[in-house]
Amino acid sequence: MDRAWNFSAGPAALPEAVLRQAQADLLDWNGSGASVMELSHRGKRFMELAAATEERLRRLMGIPANYRVLFLQGGATQHFAQIPMNLAPRDGSADYIVTGVFSRKAVSEAAHHVNANVAATSEADDFRSLPPRDTWRLDPSASYVHYTPNETIRGLEFHDVPDVGDVPLVADMSSNILGAPLDVSRFGLIYAGAQKNIGPSGLVVMIVRDDLLERAPQPIAKILRYAEQAKNDSMLNTPNTWGWYLAGLTFEWIEGQGGLAVMGERNARKSATVYAAIDGSDGFYRNDVQRSARSRMNVSFVLHDTALDAVFLQESEAAGFIGLKGHKAIGGMRASLYNAVSEPAVDELVKFMRDFAARHG
Amino acid sequence: MDRAWNFSAGPAALPEAVLRQAQADLLDWNGSGASVMELSHRGKRFMELAAATEERLRRLMGIPANYRVLFLQGGATQHFAQIPMNLAPRDGSADYIVTGVFSRKAVSEAAHHVNANVAATSEADDFRSLPPRDTWRLDPSASYVHYTPNETIRGLEFHDVPDVGDVPLVADMSSNILGAPLDVSRFGLIYAGAQKNIGPSGLVVMIVRDDLLERAPQPIAKILRYAEQAKNDSMLNTPNTWGWYLAGLTFEWIEGQGGLAVMGERNARKSATVYAAIDGSDGFYRNDVQRSARSRMNVSFVLHDTALDAVFLQESEAAGFIGLKGHKAIGGMRASLYNAVSEPAVDELVKFMRDFAARHG
Repeated sequence: MDRAWNFSAGPAALPEAVLRQAQADLLDWNGSGASVMELSHRGKRFMELAAATEERLRRLMGIPANYRVLFLQGGATQHFAQIPMNLAPRDGSADYIVTGVFSRKAVSEAAHHVNANVAATSEADDFRSLPPRDTWRLDPSASYVHYTPNETIRGLEFHDVPDVGDVPLVADMSSNILGAPLDVSRFGLIYAGAQKNIGPSGLVVMIVRDDLLERAPQPIAKILRYAEQAKNDSMLNTPNTWGWYLAGLTFEWIEGQGGLAVMGERNARKSATVYAAIDGSDGFYRNDVQRSARSRMNVSFVLHDTALDAVFLQESEAAGFIGLKGHKAIGGMRASLYNAVSEPAVDELVKFMRDFAARHG
Repeated sequence: MDRAWNFSAGPAALPEAVLRQAQADLLDWNGSGASVMELSHRGKRFMELAAATEERLRRLMGIPANYRVLFLQGGATQHFAQIPMNLAPRDGSADYIVTGVFSRKAVSEAAHHVNANVAATSEADDFRSLPPRDTWRLDPSASYVHYTPNETIRGLEFHDVPDVGDVPLVADMSSNILGAPLDVSRFGLIYAGAQKNIGPSGLVVMIVRDDLLERAPQPIAKILRYAEQAKNDSMLNTPNTWGWYLAGLTFEWIEGQGGLAVMGERNARKSATVYAAIDGSDGFYRNDVQRSARSRMNVSFVLHDTALDAVFLQESEAAGFIGLKGHKAIGGMRASLYNAVSEPAVDELVKFMRDFAARHG
C-alpha cells in the first residue's frame, strides 16, 4: 500500500526523507561496506556520526556549553527511577507536579529511590487542566522539581516553563522535545524517549547541566550513573547505534526544514486546524482539555456518541489513517501531530472528520 | 563499495538476507503503510511480531516451558547491575567466575548491589585459560553463580556447561548465544546483548527460569524488576521495536539455514580454518589461548613482529576486510566469526593471512 497518514502517539511517524536515506544506507553506510548497525561504536566512522549528531542537536536547541548531552537507553520510564538515584540522596526528597498518567508514573517509580512529594496535581480534574502555579507547594530544599511539559495521553501541555526558583527543574519532554524553540537554560535536566520527535524507540536523549553531574549519586553501579556516561561520551557500553544514527538523520531533516522556529509554527498551525475542526463541529466532536493548556502535539477528542467510535476507527483506517485510537485510559480518539506529520496529512484528517460528521451527524 | 568482509567483534555483521528484508520493509512493513519503527508496540501487528519472534527463539533454542523470554534494553552491562538487584538480597552474596574483561566488569558492577565473590579467576594468566572446575570455591548458599561462557576480547570459551550444583547458573552469553545448540535447562538465567548473533545493539534477550522470577527483588522501581517485565510481556514501557523486529528476521534466517546444529557445525569449521592458518604459519601468527578453550566466535592472534600490525590492518582494509583490529586491552588482531560471517568470508581471510605472511615473512 501507499504510506499511511500516520497519527500514532509513539512510536510515531518519522520523516519520509529520513526513512528513504536509511533505506539507501542499509547495506552500505557512508562507504563503509556495512550497515551502520554492523560497525563498532568505537570506530572512526561511528564516533564521527555520534559527535556530529550531538553538535547538530546543540545547534538546533541552542544548548549552552555548561550542559552535557547523553544518548542513553531504557525509555523515559527507566529514568523515572534513575534520575532520583543520580540527583538525590536516598533519604532526600524531590517535588513532582502530576498532570497525567506519565507524571504519575514518574512519581510511583521514583518513590522507590527518593521521597517523592506530589507538590501539585490536577488528578481531581482527571488531568484535563494544569494546577495553577500559585497552588504548587514546593519545598525549597527539594533535590529537584520534576514535571511533564506535555502529557501524551490526554494532550495537556505547559506553554510556558514554570518558575521554580533555584531548585533544578527536571522535565520529561518525551512527547514535545523539538516541537518548538525552548530556552534550555531554564532547566536542570531534560530527558526524552526518542520515539516521538527524535527517532525510533530504544533511545533516550538527555540534556543535563554540569553541576547536577557533580552531585554524589546513590550507591549504584557505574552504568547507572549519568556522570560516568558523560565522562565516557555515552559509550560506557555499546549504545543503541541505529537509534543514534536515525536521530542524527532526523536532526538534519529538522535543520533542513528551518529548525525549531519552523517546527513550532507548523505545529501551532497543525494543532489549531484540528482543534478548529473539533470546536466547529457543533458538538459532534469534543475536546475536554483546558483551552490554554491544549497540546500542540497530541489532540484528543471524543465523539458525541461513543457508539460511533468503532465506526470512526474502521472508516478512518479504510481511508488510510492509522494511530487515531485514543489511549485506553481515557478512550475516544487522539491525533498525534509530531514534527514528521505533515500539514497535508492534517488537512486530510480534518477533511475526513468533517465528512464523517456529515455522514453520521 | 561492495559489502565488506566484516569480522567486527560487535556491533557485528548481520545476515545480508536480513538487511535486504529490512531494506524492503523500511517504508512499508507488512502492508501497514508505515515502517515498523513508526507503529505502536501495542498495536495488533507489532504484538504478533513480538509473539512470533519469541516463539521462534523458543523453537530454535528448545527453551523449556518453565522459562520466560524477555526483550529488554541497556546492554549486558546494565544487567550486570540489575541481575543482583533481582536475584539476591542486598546483604546476600553471589559467586562470580572471572575469565576475562567482561566477567571482571560483571563483578565490579554487581558489587554495588550484592556481595560479589570471585570464586575462581584466570586473571593471573591474563585470561588465556579457564580456571579448572575443581579449583572453584563455590558457596552453596550463594544466590547464583555467574559466568561468561565466551569472553569476546581474548576469545576464550567454555565448551561445556559447568556443573554448579543446585545454585542457579547465570550466563552472559552476549557473544556466543545461538552459535551452537545449548541445553537451556542447565541454566537459571541466560542474557545477551543482541549486537553479535541476534541483531542490532540496544536490545537484550533474557531467558529466565520461572522460580527466579519469584524471588523478592531489592527495593527497586518496577521498571527494573524482571518479574514485572515478564508479567507485562516485556512491554512495561515502549521496547526497542526495531531491535525486536531485526531479531525476529535473524531468528528466521537461522531457522532457514537449518537451526543451531548447522550454526554450530559451521562455526566449528570456520574457527578451525582460522586456527589452522595461525598454527600452520610457522610462528608468523600466534594465538595464546589454552587450546581446549579457544573460542569459536572470536579468534585473537598476534603477529610475530608488532611492527607489522599497522601494515596488516592497512592492507587488510584495502583488501576489503573490516573489524580485524584486536581490542586495545590486548592488542594484535581479532577475527570474530559470528553466525552472519560466511564460510567464503573466512576462506578469503585465511587466503589474505597466508599471502600477507608470504609477503612479509
